[in-house]
Amino acid sequence: MTTAPIRTDLYPTRGAAEETTPRQDPVVWSAPGTPGPIAADDLSAFDRDGFLAVDQLVGPEEVAELRAEMDRITGDPRIKADERSIVEPRSQEIRSVFEIHRISEVFGRLASDPRLVERARQILGSDVYIHQSRINLKPGFGASGFYWHSDFETWHAEDGLPRMRAVSVSVALTENYPTNGSLMIMPGSHKTFLGCAGATPKDNYKRSLQMQDAGTPSNEALTSLASDYGIRQFTGSAGSATWFDCNCMHGSGDNITPYARSNVFLVFNSVENAAEEPFAAPVPRPDFIGARDFTPIR
Amino acid sequence: MTTAPIRTDLYPTRGAAEETTPRQDPVVWSAPGTPGPIAADDLSAFDRDGFLAVDQLVGPEEVAELRAEMDRITGDPRIKADERSIVEPRSQEIRSVFEIHRISEVFGRLASDPRLVERARQILGSDVYIHQSRINLKPGFGASGFYWHSDFETWHAEDGLPRMRAVSVSVALTENYPTNGSLMIMPGSHKTFLGCAGATPKDNYKRSLQMQDAGTPSNEALTSLASDYGIRQFTGSAGSATWFDCNCMHGSGDNITPYARSNVFLVFNSVENAAEEPFAAPVPRPDFIGARDFTPIR
Repeated sequence: MTTAPIRTDLYPTRGAAEETTPRQDPVVWSAPGTPGPIAADDLSAFDRDGFLAVDQLVGPEEVAELRAEMDRITGDPRIKADERSIVEPRSQEIRSVFEIHRISEVFGRLASDPRLVERARQILGSDVYIHQSRINLKPGFGASGFYWHSDFETWHAEDGLPRMRAVSVSVALTENYPTNGSLMIMPGSHKTFLGCAGATPKDNYKRSLQMQDAGTPSNEALTSLASDYGIRQFTGSAGSATWFDCNCMHGSGDNITPYARSNVFLVFNSVENAAEEPFAAPVPRPDFIGARDFTPIR
Repeated sequence: MTTAPIRTDLYPTRGAAEETTPRQDPVVWSAPGTPGPIAADDLSAFDRDGFLAVDQLVGPEEVAELRAEMDRITGDPRIKADERSIVEPRSQEIRSVFEIHRISEVFGRLASDPRLVERARQILGSDVYIHQSRINLKPGFGASGFYWHSDFETWHAEDGLPRMRAVSVSVALTENYPTNGSLMIMPGSHKTFLGCAGATPKDNYKRSLQMQDAGTPSNEALTSLASDYGIRQFTGSAGSATWFDCNCMHGSGDNITPYARSNVFLVFNSVENAAEEPFAAPVPRPDFIGARDFTPIR
């Protein structure tokens, strides 16, 4: 039997009661003036707001290729049967496919594209690897949304990311309207960590990918956060991208329109912030949800 | 035993297959130039689009009174236990209270307010009565929306309204944001009747007030309608009103924000269009959902 040294937990969560902790980490980790594709003003805005919208990060032809690949993947019965596919409770259609950068060469290329990786490096101030990747489909006619959450809360509790040193990018593969369940972020919410109440059940991820339970903020906390920060909704054409800090409080409504809202979602984590044992869960989630291979993207 | 004469059904629905019928009725029933509170241009726009937004139809002090009354009503356990209250499946909170103009003196006054009644008379070209009234609460934190539907489809099939000669007004009691499940209408969709496939089950209303089933358009029909007409979302401050024709294709998404989206909804029907036997249901719905008292509002 070995005895592990006692770890410091900067961000306690899943305890008896909800509790807030001020952010203990920078938002932008690179030294001021470090060269990179993000302009200084945009980097400051990212620091303040926790997000950065980039119009047409990916051009129309590339979007067409990515969409064709998405259609191919979601039409493949072997992929639907794969544990990495999450199926919509109502329609039994594919809602998400995880580890898409490994499943698909096309999405794999996107995950190592310098337009994305250089921005992630600039924000995180180090080499990066993919902690999680997926395509999300919100096919319309009643597809559910995602309730409010901080990704970091889950990645810390269930995947063991120790620090807030990860950044996500969502690249729109279809037009995002105000009406088709587009992303909502509370700007500035990333500066406070909301530790959620309630222990993590075993295999929580199997339920939580369909509907949240553990890791869900209370109505009182959401009311207070929305009152402090407001809610910003992200709309835009296919190919536009939204970068957002790992601790942004965000969510999305359902989509009853006929306009699918699909995106590819990539999470870059600093190689200096590799996943450890979970901070508040009995076992880590599977590798396809929270990577254990920390090889930097070159 | 009496033998009823065979009725003409201008708008067949709930048959074996979905079918469309061009609208057989005017949208605006009053003769051109008939005096009334709606300006000629607005009336033409209503004819064309099927809706008319009126900013601040009700002033801030009246909104405050209506909201206080709504809070009183939804906090009353007797009203929650009343069959006229519809409870949210997820939270078990009140979602709608029907026949609100009879339950509440305050809402009763609104239902006979000349600002509303005169507009309804002008559109329908006759005296009017209340076919249905309710308050709708969408309290946030995950309240469900209403899937796409034409009200007239149900009122014809299940309540027996023979003609398209009814108009609804939704008065906002809280701010309507793009993010809190506000009303969506397909402008111009009121000019075509979409008869839905499938027979009406007995007591369909008990289920359909929580989630639609019979009377639900197909994905193909919705795609075609949205492609022809687009989708318009209605936002605005408390006190603003949206008038819309009984046959508009409309719906709303869910509401995960902390901002409740509440409204009072009144349906004026022409006294010359009184409810008959249902056109496509075994029995009429209860009076509190589809009135059988056709006394004109004076």
